[in-house]
Amino acid sequence: MIKTYLGCYPCFLRQALDAARLAGASDEQQKTILDRVLEMLTQIALSSTPPEIGDRVHRIVRQEVGHRDPYREAKETSTRQALALYPRLRKCVQEADDPLDVAVRLSIAGNIIDLGPHQQYDLWDVIERVLTQPFAIDDRTAFREALGMADRVLYLADNAGETVFDRLLIEVLQVPVVYTVKGGPVLNDATREDALAAGLDQVAQVVETRSDAPGTILDRCSDEFWRLYNEVGVIVAKGQANYETLSHVGPKVFFLLQVKCPVIARDAGAGVGSFVLKQG
Amino acid sequence: MIKTYLGCYPCFLRQALDAARLAGASDEQQKTILDRVLEMLTQIALSSTPPEIGDRVHRIVRQEVGHRDPYREAKETSTRQALALYPRLRKCVQEADDPLDVAVRLSIAGNIIDLGPHQQYDLWDVIERVLTQPFAIDDRTAFREALGMADRVLYLADNAGETVFDRLLIEVLQVPVVYTVKGGPVLNDATREDALAAGLDQVAQVVETRSDAPGTILDRCSDEFWRLYNEVGVIVAKGQANYETLSHVGPKVFFLLQVKCPVIARDAGAGVGSFVLKQG
Repeated sequence: MIKTYLGCYPCFLRQALDAARLAGASDEQQKTILDRVLEMLTQIALSSTPPEIGDRVHRIVRQEVGHRDPYREAKETSTRQALALYPRLRKCVQEADDPLDVAVRLSIAGNIIDLGPHQQYDLWDVIERVLTQPFAIDDRTAFREALGMADRVLYLADNAGETVFDRLLIEVLQVPVVYTVKGGPVLNDATREDALAAGLDQVAQVVETRSDAPGTILDRCSDEFWRLYNEVGVIVAKGQANYETLSHVGPKVFFLLQVKCPVIARDAGAGVGSFVLKQG
Repeated sequence: MIKTYLGCYPCFLRQALDAARLAGASDEQQKTILDRVLEMLTQIALSSTPPEIGDRVHRIVRQEVGHRDPYREAKETSTRQALALYPRLRKCVQEADDPLDVAVRLSIAGNIIDLGPHQQYDLWDVIERVLTQPFAIDDRTAFREALGMADRVLYLADNAGETVFDRLLIEVLQVPVVYTVKGGPVLNDATREDALAAGLDQVAQVVETRSDAPGTILDRCSDEFWRLYNEVGVIVAKGQANYETLSHVGPKVFFLLQVKCPVIARDAGAGVGSFVLKQG
């Protein structure tokens, strides 16, 4: 697990403000939210993971704005935009010499759809880069071997929209996949509703973790999730928050992500902006 | 005057951390500093200018680290680097068709030397850009006219190192200049020591404002400064902090700066990264 660094604090404030504004908070509400986040930050244990703090930040935003899912519209837009690309991307995978490799790369490209660390991105630019750029950490061979021996894959979703890119990867896996999503809205993380909108139920069994915190905080997840987590041979964990909460898990987990901040960059040993497929 | 926006809060935390680290603060000291800044931010009036909050941030850092001038070494390096460029830049001014124009541009280029908003920059890149790029706000004609009628100029310094670029501008002004610096160390702002190291005493009368807050907070300045401020016909105010604290002052003040953050960009009506010569 990644602990929270002091360098994360400015980012928590920025995320609180971004989320508050996206949720249509008034100036007074934004001030109240920021004051509550400042107060909360004086009391946190630095042993907490960043997603645990992020969970508290976004809970404060939802409470003050009185909106259960401030990112609903943004998530729907992301899914719609990704679905519009889907036929073209699927053709790209099908026509590839190595469909698994291209699908892995696209799944990581999809990880740019993240309204947490950075709110602006050019998706096509990322797709083109990820199709050619070398991986900063490249455990693709181990991933391929692990998949060859697994009878089931647990796939931990990250953001809405990114789900469509996950679907492309799942379509080329030769094993049954359980696709887990959040138990409730947090940030732009995918919920069951978002997974269904992206058509994940057509390629996987969609299961909720029961937790509505960013990443995967194991002791907040359901018994069903725990059972799956223990039973499966391979876990695919998407995005930074899953890395932050599960980096201590052993070699059966494979992290697919873009490095988006210096804290993760330092821990993973890969530069900001780089693409990573890292075995736990 | 510019009030503090909620969007400034993440930047205050980042500045506190940057300053703490530059001052060699231990992990425990950094945590104490950040907790004190968080606490302070819950209590500020949003009508305060960002430099007033910045003043409190940097005061906390200096208190906790027990270091009167954490930026001393960084400032000396900036001055040394700028002085190394000085002969070449001076030639550039002297050989120009319009020396005042080139000197004004270089003085703004020097404003990139600022460890507040951003810690990384490529000085030569900025110099080349500023020599050719159009101004986002261009009151150069009014500036030229005001200089033609003034019998004295009050020049409000910003950062150490930038001082050398100010010197280039002062050398082409046809009027006596009083160059005012901070009364004590704050951030990398120029003090008397920094001005002398850059040779400003050879081209101007160097005077302390008596204040050690960023920008120019008038009611903290000395009587001597007040007298000058009222008497002179033209005031040249360098950098964002002076703009933030003096933007309400009338047409005798001319702001020379690079826009470094969205708050100033919105207020001045010029994009982040743009060059501005704006009459008050």
